[in-house]
Formats: sequence, C-alpha cells, structure tokens
Amino acid sequence: MEDKNQQAVQRGVALVIGAGDATGGEIAKRFARGGYTACMTRRNADKLKPLIAEIEQQGGTVYGFASDARKEEQVIALIEHIEAEVGPIEVLVFNIGANVPCSILEETARKYFKIWEMACFGAFLTGREVAKRMVTRERGTIIFTGATAGIRGAAGFAAFAGAKHALRALAQSMARELGPRNIHVAHVVVDGAIDTDFIKDTFPEMYAKKDQDGILNPVHIAENYWHLAQQPRDAWTHELDLRPWIERW
Amino acid sequence: MEDKNQQAVQRGVALVIGAGDATGGEIAKRFARGGYTACMTRRNADKLKPLIAEIEQQGGTVYGFASDARKEEQVIALIEHIEAEVGPIEVLVFNIGANVPCSILEETARKYFKIWEMACFGAFLTGREVAKRMVTRERGTIIFTGATAGIRGAAGFAAFAGAKHALRALAQSMARELGPRNIHVAHVVVDGAIDTDFIKDTFPEMYAKKDQDGILNPVHIAENYWHLAQQPRDAWTHELDLRPWIERW
Amino acid sequence: MEDKNQQAVQRGVALVIGAGDATGGEIAKRFARGGYTACMTRRNADKLKPLIAEIEQQGGTVYGFASDARKEEQVIALIEHIEAEVGPIEVLVFNIGANVPCSILEETARKYFKIWEMACFGAFLTGREVAKRMVTRERGTIIFTGATAGIRGAAGFAAFAGAKHALRALAQSMARELGPRNIHVAHVVVDGAIDTDFIKDTFPEMYAKKDQDGILNPVHIAENYWHLAQQPRDAWTHELDLRPWIERW
Amino acid sequence: MEDKNQQAVQRGVALVIGAGDATGGEIAKRFARGGYTACMTRRNADKLKPLIAEIEQQGGTVYGFASDARKEEQVIALIEHIEAEVGPIEVLVFNIGANVPCSILEETARKYFKIWEMACFGAFLTGREVAKRMVTRERGTIIFTGATAGIRGAAGFAAFAGAKHALRALAQSMARELGPRNIHVAHVVVDGAIDTDFIKDTFPEMYAKKDQDGILNPVHIAENYWHLAQQPRDAWTHELDLRPWIERW
Repeated sequence: MEDKNQQAVQRGVALVIGAGDATGGEIAKRFARGGYTACMTRRNADKLKPLIAEIEQQGGTVYGFASDARKEEQVIALIEHIEAEVGPIEVLVFNIGANVPCSILEETARKYFKIWEMACFGAFLTGREVAKRMVTRERGTIIFTGATAGIRGAAGFAAFAGAKHALRALAQSMARELGPRNIHVAHVVVDGAIDTDFIKDTFPEMYAKKDQDGILNPVHIAENYWHLAQQPRDAWTHELDLRPWIERW
Repeated sequence: MEDKNQQAVQRGVALVIGAGDATGGEIAKRFARGGYTACMTRRNADKLKPLIAEIEQQGGTVYGFASDARKEEQVIALIEHIEAEVGPIEVLVFNIGANVPCSILEETARKYFKIWEMACFGAFLTGREVAKRMVTRERGTIIFTGATAGIRGAAGFAAFAGAKHALRALAQSMARELGPRNIHVAHVVVDGAIDTDFIKDTFPEMYAKKDQDGILNPVHIAENYWHLAQQPRDAWTHELDLRPWIERW
Repeated sequence: MEDKNQQAVQRGVALVIGAGDATGGEIAKRFARGGYTACMTRRNADKLKPLIAEIEQQGGTVYGFASDARKEEQVIALIEHIEAEVGPIEVLVFNIGANVPCSILEETARKYFKIWEMACFGAFLTGREVAKRMVTRERGTIIFTGATAGIRGAAGFAAFAGAKHALRALAQSMARELGPRNIHVAHVVVDGAIDTDFIKDTFPEMYAKKDQDGILNPVHIAENYWHLAQQPRDAWTHELDLRPWIERW
Repeated sequence: MEDKNQQAVQRGVALVIGAGDATGGEIAKRFARGGYTACMTRRNADKLKPLIAEIEQQGGTVYGFASDARKEEQVIALIEHIEAEVGPIEVLVFNIGANVPCSILEETARKYFKIWEMACFGAFLTGREVAKRMVTRERGTIIFTGATAGIRGAAGFAAFAGAKHALRALAQSMARELGPRNIHVAHVVVDGAIDTDFIKDTFPEMYAKKDQDGILNPVHIAENYWHLAQQPRDAWTHELDLRPWIERW
C-alpha cells in the first residue's frame, strides 16, 4: 500500500458512496485522473473490480469497499478505515438514488422507508462521519447527487420526492453550518435520464434520445463534480442543475 | 354512539392526528364547532380528556384515540375503526412536529430517524390510509402542518428540515395525484413560535413577544385550516404561510 | 357624500386598482358587503357604472375612478383624493394583469415594457403611495394579484413572467419592510383560467371546463382576499395559491 | 481587421455587455484567453482602453464598443455590426447590475424604472437580438449575471429585487424556449460582495473580508462562466450560485 499512500497524502482521498452506476464510476475516474486516491463503495464489492482495473490501468490509485450506507456501524467503520489506512478524505460524493415511482394509494410503508433510507439516511450517516474529520482539518468538499424530485413533488413520486427533498435539506443545512468552517457542501440537481444500463433496459424510449445527446453522459456529469471540488472558497457553488438540452422542465 | 353518529353522517369526520399541542386541539375545536365530528389522536389518550370535555361542553361531537402515527398497524386500525364506527373521514389534519435542533456533527442516527418518522413517515401512513377511503367517495380534504424548515435548510436543523422537506414533497405529490380525484391536499407553512406550553417553558424570550401578538395564536391557525377545508374546488389553495407580523423572514 | 363618508370612517376604504375584470369587481363587492367603502379604478370609469349600481343596490358604499395606474401623477392624485374626500385606505388590492404570450424572438420592446408597466410598475406606484399613508396610521392591508408566471418562467412568457416575478419581488420586499410596521402585504398566486369574458372569448377550450369547476370563479377568489384582510396580525399569510382542482401544475 | 477576424471565425465572438466592472472585464479576458474574440461594451468606451490593452498584451483579440444596453436602436446596431464585421456571436454575457437600496416609502419612480431598465430591459433587448442570430446557426450560449435578490425580496430592495427577479424570469423563459434549439441559456446567482472598487469605496467593512477570501474574486467568477460555456449539451446547467465560504445565507 506504500505507493498508493504516497499519492493519497498529496491530494488526499475522493470517496464515492454508490459507485454502482455509471455516474459514480465516472466521478471516481475523474478524481483519480486529477490526482486523488479514489475510494468507491457499493454493496457488492466484487462488482467494482472492472472499474478498479480500469482506473489502475489509467494510472490512478483506487480502492473498492463493500459497504451499505444505510448501516451506521458499517459507515463508521468505513470512514475510520479509510482515514487510518488510505488517507484523509478531502472529497465525499454521495451518489445513491432510489427512483421507484408508485401511486400514493399503493405505496408500501416498506418501500417508502427504503427509498428514504437509501437516498437520504445513508447521506446523513456518511456526511456526518466525514464532516467530523473534515472539521478537524478545516477543509473538504461534500457533494450530494440530487434530482428534480428534490425540488418539486409529482404524482406518483411521493417516496422519491420525499427522500430527495430531505437530501436537499441536508445539503443546505450542512452547507450553512459547515461553510464557515471551510467545508464546501454542494448539491447537484440531475434533471433527465442518464446513460446507464438501467435506463437502457427500463426506459428504452428515453434511451433512444442518446443519439441526439438527449440523455446525460456520466463523463460530463463527473466533469461538473470535478469543477465544484476545484472552486476556490471565495466563489463556491452550493447548487447547480444538469439537464440535456432537449429536456422539458 | 347513536346521537353522535347522526351528526357524523351530516358533515362527516374531521380527524386530527397529533392533538397533543394547542394547535391540534384548536383545529379539532374549530371543526367540531363547524359541525364535523372531531376525532383526535395522541399517543396517550388520557391526556385528551380535558379537550374532549371542552368540545362536548361547547356542543360538539368528539372522540379521542390513543394512536402512534408511526406504527402502520395502528394507523390502519385507527382509520378502519373511525370509518366503520364513527363516520366517513372528510377532513384529515396531520399535525405532528418534532423540532429538536442539533449540530450535524453531533446528530445521532436515532434522533435523525425519529424526527423523520414522526413528522413525515406518520404523515405518509395516515395520508395514504385516509386517501384510500377518500378516493372511493371522490371527495375530501387533507392538510399537513409544515414549517419554514420545509422550505429552507438551516445550520443545526438538518434533521428537522429533512423531515419537513419530505413532508412538503409528500403534500405536493399527493396534491398533484389526488387533486384531479377531487381531494384537496394542502400544506400550511407555520413560520414562528406558537403560543404553547412548550414555547413558554423552553423559549421564554420568544414567549415574551405574546404581548405584542408576536407569537401565533392556535385559535387563529385553526381558522385558516377551516378556511382551507371550506374552499370550493375551483379555487383551492395548496400552500399558505402563517407568520406573526414582527417575525423576520 | 355625507352618508357614504360615515361608513367609510367606520371600516375605512378598500381600494381595488383594476376593477375592469370580473375578479376586481367581485373583490370590490366582497369588501363593500363586509362594510368597507369600495373604491374602484379602471382606465375608463364609465365602464364601472354597472358595477357601482350593483354594489349600491346591495346596500354597499362605492366610488369609481378613472385612473391609469402607470401614471405617477394620476396615482398620487387618486390616493390624495380618496384619503381626503372618502376615507382612510385600509385595504389596497392591485389587480392589473397583462398576459400576452409571445416568442422571445418576436417580442417587441414596446410590449415587453408595457406588460411590466401595467403589471408591476403600477403596483409599485400605488403600493408606495398607499403605504405612505398606512405607515402613519400603523395599520393596513395590501394584496397583489400574482400568477404562476411569477414563480416560474416558461417558453413564450418572458414578458409576462418578468412582470409577475418583479411584482412578487415587490410584494416580498414590502412585506419584509412593512410587516413590522403593522401593514399586512400579501401575494395571491392565481394558477388557472378565471371565469371572465376574456377567457370565454379567447380560450373557449379552457372556458369549457367551467361545467366541472375547472376555471376559477371570481366570487371564490374574492372570498380569499377577504380572508387575508381579516387575518389577525399574529398569523398573517404572505402568499397563497388558488387553483382549480383539475389544473395540472 | 483581417488578422483579428481570422480568429473570430475559429471560435467566434464572446460578447460581454457591461464590462465596466471587474467582473465583466475578467469574463472578457477569460474568453479571449480561451480563443474567442472578446467584444465588450460599456457606456463610455474610452474607459475600456486599459482592458483592451491588457487583453491584447496577453495575445487576445478584443474590441470595445460604447453602447447603452437600454436603447433598442443602439443594441440592434451593435449586434448587427459585430455579426457583420467581427464574427458570429457564440457567447453572450449580460453583466449589468444596479444595486441601489432604498425604503419602499422613499423609492422614486425614476429610480425604480432605471434599475429595471438597466438590469432587466437591457438584458431582454440584447438577449433577443443575439438569440435571433443564434437560432439561425442553431448554437450559442447566453449567460445572465443574477443576484440573490433575484430569488428573494428584502426590506429596502424592492427595486433591485424586482429587476433581478424579472431577469431570472427572462433567463428561465429563454432557456425553456431556446434550449431545444441548441442555445444554452444560464443564470448565475452571485451572492456576496465582489472585489471591485465600488465595494472597496462604498462598503469598506465588506471589503475588509478580502483577506480571508470573504468577497468574490472576479477571476474566479469568470472561470465559472467559462465552465458553463464549455458544457456539452447533454449536461447543461441553467442556474448556479456563487458565494464566499463565510457568507451567511
């Protein structure tokens, strides 16, 4: 682990919670390319192997972890491990979504809870644990992946909108508390379908817009996360939206 | 239960979830005075006795129930009981708050969860169960008590703002889905301290503003809930704020 | 003018700027019925005659004035006249709209300016002149008729959205400055077609929704303005929306 | 003009309306450095000379124009001239502000109008004229410099908030209309004092925060405009905020 650690000491760690989709993966790649040590989590770490191989092939330093962001003890152990063994977490990206529409009349308590637990509670746990370290160093960046549902409710989206609204409230509250302690907290509103296998398989009519740049390219999303993390502290962005040119809003 | 039921059949039931504070109590009184059968819940039903006595003395029809809005089976049983034994629920008011500020760095997972569970999850459970009945009758009014924290995060308010944001998302999503089914869903943004024992004991400096009408009178809050419930369907309000004249915002 | 003035002294004057459409007229009627002396303006005062006759027949006290709200000297003269000859203005309702959609590529400078001048500049002039009197009495209510375009821009609505956004900014700024001086400033977001001749003639497909309460009844709009003006100062509403149950939003 | 034009043909023109302050100047420099031909305006073109010299010294191509953005004929002539003689306008930045606080009770009609005319009407005129050209080429970027006052009114800010709200409505309406025509319209919410002579002279207590990065550096603002203009069209940002880390919001 020696070589890897040397670099981690230089720019530190960029931790991506939820690297299971293309977006998280591209964000990890982008920060690795920029000199950070990328740390990535998903529930099944084996699935991270191709991504790890790709980043290493590009010369990046990277670690993958199996971790369930909804479990406090797992989150605490993960952050402790990274800080102790890999390097200081300079950037945290929380990137877990859970968009499963349903009529309010048929939504189950279990699903309503799980969507909140994944998209919001995990963000709280990870955000808190990482922020505790960042305040001692008086620096750091925390970015939450939000959605339009975080700004506006919609028929059939009570659960997802609730979770994403709560996530946005978390981001705003943390930004207002931690900004003056030199921790940059940002919230990215992704408005549109992303070029992922999930969209390809589930919403082929959306995916068909890819030919005309009608769905978001994860590489381009990642570039905006990178941009946020590089902003000097006199000009921080708390919130920006990302949307394909033809998207109606 | 005969006499009571006769009236319930006339205007139906107004159910207030969370009548433990002055606001819920005054809302119940207002709807009882307007001819609804008031049903009220709090976790300890014994504490509802003085309120029940007061409403009955004023000639109102009223029932009190011990019920924990966070427990699905209790909520289901409560709604079933009222619909079967008391009358059709024409108005639902969800009025449970949980404002306990804390730094994000010290917020516990347990408290973060409980605040959401009380202020949002209970609203989901009750709202869903009542909406299921209302759609079969194609009419009804559902009002959620919100707060400024539902619109804007703040340092020290990650948990409360999260819960209230999620509640607002629930209200918006339900309004958009259920409005066209003739169910009026509204969200009231209370912005300021309310004249309650809690404020009197905990924030005496806020309570001191009472002399100049600087804190909200629950009787006046209740009047606005009544107003919302009486709006003809060509001109429904989804959201209104309530704020003392001297409140900074 | 003696008899009329006696009543004006009792509840004072409710001044409706822009009583040319059904909404302004119904608001004037509602306040006259509530004991205020109604004062109404439109550019052509002759057209107010039927409305004046109707209010007088109902036992109300009412005056009509020709006035162009965009002309400062006319606004100043109007307010001076009413305050000197009729009674203290206790309620001001600004109700001039100007919804003329157009592509940004074809919008003329003249029309862009005029829409702002009518829907916003006139509100500023009237609001300022009336507020000057209200602060000396330390009481009063000012209500602005807004629209969804005041909250969200839309393709083809750059001019109207601009004017209504600026109006909302005026309402918010005045509320924050004048609230602590006991002047209640409110903004009503009308979201939907109103039952007027304009809608009947111009958008017959909207008007067809009237049978199912799908367009706003001006009588019901007026009732909400009345409700706002009667709120005790410990629980003022700054903003509420009004929307037909079937309206998509 | 030959040499200059060759480059303009390559990346095209970046036009900055309102290069009178440090922000506009830095934006022009940034786009010149990136290969655009910078065109800048202010009412007095002589004052642009040092900026022009600086950009040319850095190897950039630049033109300065005297132009009053509030005058339609001047705006039309300016755009025609640039398009005919310099090159196609690929980026438009509208950067004129007009923040002059005043109590609503003392605000003059003249000042209320002028603030709107400068901060909003000029943006409409320029935006429309440039958009007309961009739609024929089916590409382009338009960025408006907004402010927190565009999102929230405040006591003493009725005029400025009105103008900036209207500007934001313009940006939203244009984005929704022109986005699907491949024109990227963005709105930047600057929240905080900028490092300018104006702030230095007028608000020395704000300027004192410069030592701790408490005011915005125009160079960093410009970097974000550059970032916006380079976003691929599958991931466009419509709105982002920029705020010093210690700013309260």
